[in-house]
Amino acid sequence: MSSHHIIRDAQEPALIIANGEACSFELMGELLEWSPLVIVLDSAIHRVLELNIKVDVLLGDFDRNFDAEKIREEQYPIEIIHTPDQIKTDLEKACDYLVDRGFPAANIIWATGRRADHTITNITNIVRFREQLKIVLIDDYSKIFLLPRTFEKWYPAGTIISLIPVGEVSGITTKNLKYPLDNESLTIGYRTGSSNEALEDGIVRITYEKGDLLMMECVDI
Amino acid sequence: MSSHHIIRDAQEPALIIANGEACSFELMGELLEWSPLVIVLDSAIHRVLELNIKVDVLLGDFDRNFDAEKIREEQYPIEIIHTPDQIKTDLEKACDYLVDRGFPAANIIWATGRRADHTITNITNIVRFREQLKIVLIDDYSKIFLLPRTFEKWYPAGTIISLIPVGEVSGITTKNLKYPLDNESLTIGYRTGSSNEALEDGIVRITYEKGDLLMMECVDI
Repeated sequence: MSSHHIIRDAQEPALIIANGEACSFELMGELLEWSPLVIVLDSAIHRVLELNIKVDVLLGDFDRNFDAEKIREEQYPIEIIHTPDQIKTDLEKACDYLVDRGFPAANIIWATGRRADHTITNITNIVRFREQLKIVLIDDYSKIFLLPRTFEKWYPAGTIISLIPVGEVSGITTKNLKYPLDNESLTIGYRTGSSNEALEDGIVRITYEKGDLLMMECVDI
Repeated sequence: MSSHHIIRDAQEPALIIANGEACSFELMGELLEWSPLVIVLDSAIHRVLELNIKVDVLLGDFDRNFDAEKIREEQYPIEIIHTPDQIKTDLEKACDYLVDRGFPAANIIWATGRRADHTITNITNIVRFREQLKIVLIDDYSKIFLLPRTFEKWYPAGTIISLIPVGEVSGITTKNLKYPLDNESLTIGYRTGSSNEALEDGIVRITYEKGDLLMMECVDI
């Protein structure tokens, strides 16, 4: 049994493993260590089991190639939740589940890469949980989260900071960015704030009035 | 010298190789075979040269680790275009270049994967070339293009068809999709048409009135 079953502070984020490209085992290990609960989505379970990771919840519509009994045996006492509803994605259902169980936060891995429709939907759908769940999507190159209306964080000079509007976002004002915004708007597809950067070592401040603005802290490897 | 230097029909799409995850060599080979012109973006040139591909144009701001003379020798008579302007992405500049040279169409590979800010910007920015360049983004899992106001194409039953709105898209009506839309709206982050599918073998018809709607033909591998 992996270490994540030791009782944790309830404030630690749950970990959702989605069905995109796998991240490095190192990153996954770091996140597993602190996760009080691990949820795996649908057929990703096969790849996860190969890694010998202890899973608490498996959630999906299980269309294809799925042997629930075998998984139940291997991962006892795993909770298996069948979610045939096609209106929401499995990732949204997993977030709903965490909200229902009272989790305040979730880290999500394997949510990017592979199918582009899943990638863009996974990234942009986190905005609908603005008031319910603090979500961070993480892969080997990127850390993605929805910015609160006022955001302040210390960054070293030159850190890549991409501001990606999900739709149209207005009233954006920044401090300590190389390409500053002063009460301006960004619109997906037409004007985004990709590849901005921290100007000096220090606090970067971002405020905005309307819409949903994603922060992407990205690195080239 | 690769076969793409044989004179082609000017209507064939140019090929842009961006700076995300590499696709399979097989897919790349298919696209290279028909491309009258190959453009590589910025530091992707190092990975492309390793594959022994003949490049016509190299475009970028070349911030890092770049030896223009070495590349000029190896790829004579390559055209090297320095684009320090930070307002547009290299991918947009490459598309502008093709429009200026009168190309009607472009295939783009390596535009997804790796940094999430690049992925989402590359995918959504193609909408601004609606009237100028017929763009298809291709990776091993996905084929992405902007839908014209009226779109008809034959698909086998069960083909995954994802409709992704860049912003808000209204007046969408579909025929022969499993989850049909009847004069409805989709909004990125809130309601997208991801993972729809062709209902029966036959023509799928999609019309919409306002906004920019992306088609993603995706496969699980």
